[in-house]
Amino acid sequence: RRPLTLFGGMNVLESRELAIEVADAWQQATTALGMPWVFKASFDKANRSSIHSFRGPGLEKGLAILDEIKSRFGVPVLSDVHEPGQARAVAEVCDVIQLPAFLGRQTDLVVAMAQTGAVLNLKKPQFIAPHEMRHIVRKCEEAGNDRLLLCERGTSFGYNNLVVDMLAFGEMKRSGYPLLFDVTHALQQPGGRSDSAGGRRRQVLELARAGVATGLAGLFVEAHPDPDSALCDGPCALPLGRLHAFLEQLKMLDAVVKNLASIDID
Amino acid sequence: RRPLTLFGGMNVLESRELAIEVADAWQQATTALGMPWVFKASFDKANRSSIHSFRGPGLEKGLAILDEIKSRFGVPVLSDVHEPGQARAVAEVCDVIQLPAFLGRQTDLVVAMAQTGAVLNLKKPQFIAPHEMRHIVRKCEEAGNDRLLLCERGTSFGYNNLVVDMLAFGEMKRSGYPLLFDVTHALQQPGGRSDSAGGRRRQVLELARAGVATGLAGLFVEAHPDPDSALCDGPCALPLGRLHAFLEQLKMLDAVVKNLASIDID
Amino acid sequence: RRPLTLFGGMNVLESRELAIEVADAWQQATTALGMPWVFKASFDKANRSSIHSFRGPGLEKGLAILDEIKSRFGVPVLSDVHEPGQARAVAEVCDVIQLPAFLGRQTDLVVAMAQTGAVLNLKKPQFIAPHEMRHIVRKCEEAGNDRLLLCERGTSFGYNNLVVDMLAFGEMKRSGYPLLFDVTHALQQPGGRSDSAGGRRRQVLELARAGVATGLAGLFVEAHPDPDSALCDGPCALPLGRLHAFLEQLKMLDAVVKNLASIDID
Amino acid sequence: RRPLTLFGGMNVLESRELAIEVADAWQQATTALGMPWVFKASFDKANRSSIHSFRGPGLEKGLAILDEIKSRFGVPVLSDVHEPGQARAVAEVCDVIQLPAFLGRQTDLVVAMAQTGAVLNLKKPQFIAPHEMRHIVRKCEEAGNDRLLLCERGTSFGYNNLVVDMLAFGEMKRSGYPLLFDVTHALQQPGGRSDSAGGRRRQVLELARAGVATGLAGLFVEAHPDPDSALCDGPCALPLGRLHAFLEQLKMLDAVVKNLASIDID
Repeated sequence: RRPLTLFGGMNVLESRELAIEVADAWQQATTALGMPWVFKASFDKANRSSIHSFRGPGLEKGLAILDEIKSRFGVPVLSDVHEPGQARAVAEVCDVIQLPAFLGRQTDLVVAMAQTGAVLNLKKPQFIAPHEMRHIVRKCEEAGNDRLLLCERGTSFGYNNLVVDMLAFGEMKRSGYPLLFDVTHALQQPGGRSDSAGGRRRQVLELARAGVATGLAGLFVEAHPDPDSALCDGPCALPLGRLHAFLEQLKMLDAVVKNLASIDID
Repeated sequence: RRPLTLFGGMNVLESRELAIEVADAWQQATTALGMPWVFKASFDKANRSSIHSFRGPGLEKGLAILDEIKSRFGVPVLSDVHEPGQARAVAEVCDVIQLPAFLGRQTDLVVAMAQTGAVLNLKKPQFIAPHEMRHIVRKCEEAGNDRLLLCERGTSFGYNNLVVDMLAFGEMKRSGYPLLFDVTHALQQPGGRSDSAGGRRRQVLELARAGVATGLAGLFVEAHPDPDSALCDGPCALPLGRLHAFLEQLKMLDAVVKNLASIDID
Repeated sequence: RRPLTLFGGMNVLESRELAIEVADAWQQATTALGMPWVFKASFDKANRSSIHSFRGPGLEKGLAILDEIKSRFGVPVLSDVHEPGQARAVAEVCDVIQLPAFLGRQTDLVVAMAQTGAVLNLKKPQFIAPHEMRHIVRKCEEAGNDRLLLCERGTSFGYNNLVVDMLAFGEMKRSGYPLLFDVTHALQQPGGRSDSAGGRRRQVLELARAGVATGLAGLFVEAHPDPDSALCDGPCALPLGRLHAFLEQLKMLDAVVKNLASIDID
Repeated sequence: RRPLTLFGGMNVLESRELAIEVADAWQQATTALGMPWVFKASFDKANRSSIHSFRGPGLEKGLAILDEIKSRFGVPVLSDVHEPGQARAVAEVCDVIQLPAFLGRQTDLVVAMAQTGAVLNLKKPQFIAPHEMRHIVRKCEEAGNDRLLLCERGTSFGYNNLVVDMLAFGEMKRSGYPLLFDVTHALQQPGGRSDSAGGRRRQVLELARAGVATGLAGLFVEAHPDPDSALCDGPCALPLGRLHAFLEQLKMLDAVVKNLASIDID
């Protein structure tokens, strides 16, 4: 029943300057609203549709930027890990390290990440049922790490579409671990553009509201000052200029929801 | 931005006595909470999985019960129509007549219902995309009826499962017509039991909350004093004893949501 | 292991002349190839997307055309039934009467059709699992009719798409009833055009081959002399000019397949 | 129009002895039937559901077994690669190296594999549309490798199920690259057992027939002398004792199909 934590930031570290701009906007909004916040950014987009797409600054430069943001803003930071060999380095800088959805079944990666002792954000792969998350959870636990977060980001629904099954939220919560909802990736239309994914950012608020109303531990959101010129997943990104208004609504909604009694229905 | 209207009642008219019991509970709860309410019950379940399943009292006796409830409780009533020839008779008693989801593509039924002039509740078939609802809407309009409600009740997702696509809500709202959410049918697991559908009534509250948080015109809910002994769709029914607590939460949530500003995201 | 029976004809009875033209082409091809054939045409398309779409000549005129074709070509005929009240009239002319997929759950229609004693072609609804066909079968049996055919025509797969699950064929065959495959409707893209369904007729041969290779009792095919000007489902129709070549291949394939031994794999 | 090539072997290299037993059975059957054959086995199952599941002998020992099989039986061999760093070592032994379906979007892996110059077998991820395979193809081409095979192995269909969309075959063939069909993995029921995937091996023959009838370059099949005691994917495996009968049918079917004329349908 703790208030909603934001895992908020940007998709990929387009540049040090942009990262600072985005982090600054997040800090202002979350400070003003008194919402707990973890900064999120990727140093590498390892699974772009096209070989020509921008991937990011890479591990070393990316971690340097994240480290700077961490100390400059005094905020915990999160980034995703793509290979077992990256886990330790990322965990040295990042407070939360994230398992990408497509890689959710790769045992070596899961174990390497778990063994760092960092908090793990486990994205639910688009191709598994919610009850199958327990397999990934058990791998982490057996590797000695129970500092776990589960994160929904949409499930394959026919071709080129994702759907968020709100009934899956309850099933994942029964694991006992905090549940996050990655609302911006859930807006993706995979393969929806000629060489990258499309998105439905106009609907970000209604989808976020729906998720928050079920009672979430955290909301995962990517923002960009100019989504149309973003180098990755712009069609899903929240415009940075709308961040404060967006968060304000969800904070209020979360407070209302977390105050509601549970009703025993059997 | 009008407050949430409840389309609430029971699945099938098991008996006159039970209908009165259920309507009485709905009236007490909605009066106490000051929520607009339309009583819903079916006189015939025309598409049960098994030929041996209970279907209801039939058109004549069913309408008599609905008529009694209407005058006894002073409440508008809703029932569903299964054949073009039933439309006029049902519309003489019922204020809202409902197009069943499986029958959403049957032109003669749609037109016959539209021509009664009654308010129509159009259930979205499980097998169509939200943007296809405009075809059904247009049939009604061209038959001279624009007193329409659209109603989501879940979409086919693989075998024996339904999913509620909250992004579809926005798409249906763009029609300009009020959007309802049939939360109890959305809990169905079609073909999930040996001779009937299963359900997930334990999750009714979280799914209702998610829907209401997106900003709905109405919520459609079926309740039963003892869901395990209900003659149809018990696995989805809200226990009548939880009705007040259930509605109280959703009323509060709806009030919060309807007060939120819209945020222009393009 | 009997050779493949063709349920072949046209989508809707656009006119008496066209029906005769199509039946003539079917008769020539099936006679030349020695393939059993039942003529199929609809007198009414009761579930068109748009109210303005062509629906057909209606019951009376349609049955007159079917009756003429039946005697002129000496061929059994099949048509679909949309309301319980039509069943007897259709069964007086047609040797096989067909349950539309969208209406597969309507008990009154199923029972009325079963009670005619005609052979029933039961289309699998797009929204049910193959094992649920047993409910429809049981309704027919309990209404005294076991002259049943099951017919696959694709299953909802996300929005605006159908998929044919070839593993469902085996499950339906275990019912003991002959299995047909409606290959042309399986090519539909529901809601794929602005006011009607799209289709993938270029792929009709490969999909038919795949189905026939599993060992089918019958193949259901709609053809048209000029699919682009067909009044319904043209995007799915086999061009009549390709009929002989199409059937010739499938006959050969069927003969090969029906000669193969079954292999016991447990 | 070349005859069907078999990519046949076993799931994981359970032991050197078993690998030789399986390869021996494959060689006998394919030699007797005169069918081209590539031996397939995995040295590591890197994405098992459970951390306790058997994974295989690992890279070094596994490649040693594959090398022995290659020289002993004079057969090209195929294995899958899970990390960029493995690509070169695997390509030194294997004639064909395989991109796992879950990893189909990992650019570094794709590029590292392409740069070996080996023939690549690209499994279609369960979560992408057939037309999206062109992105993976283009990555390979731009990394200088156009010795590509595409391989269908089923698409996510709701929870815990896969479906093979035979219409996707035609779309993938239009790439111009040979199309394989991994029939045994397509039988998987992901998450279908308490700690691993289920399967439908009883239906392997009918599904293989359907695929072959569409005209395939190759068929991918895993077999095991005793599927119930297999250490991975036993529920999908073809019993080795049925191998000859299974292949004999598909060879005959393939010969018939490859002799059929194409029919121009537009």
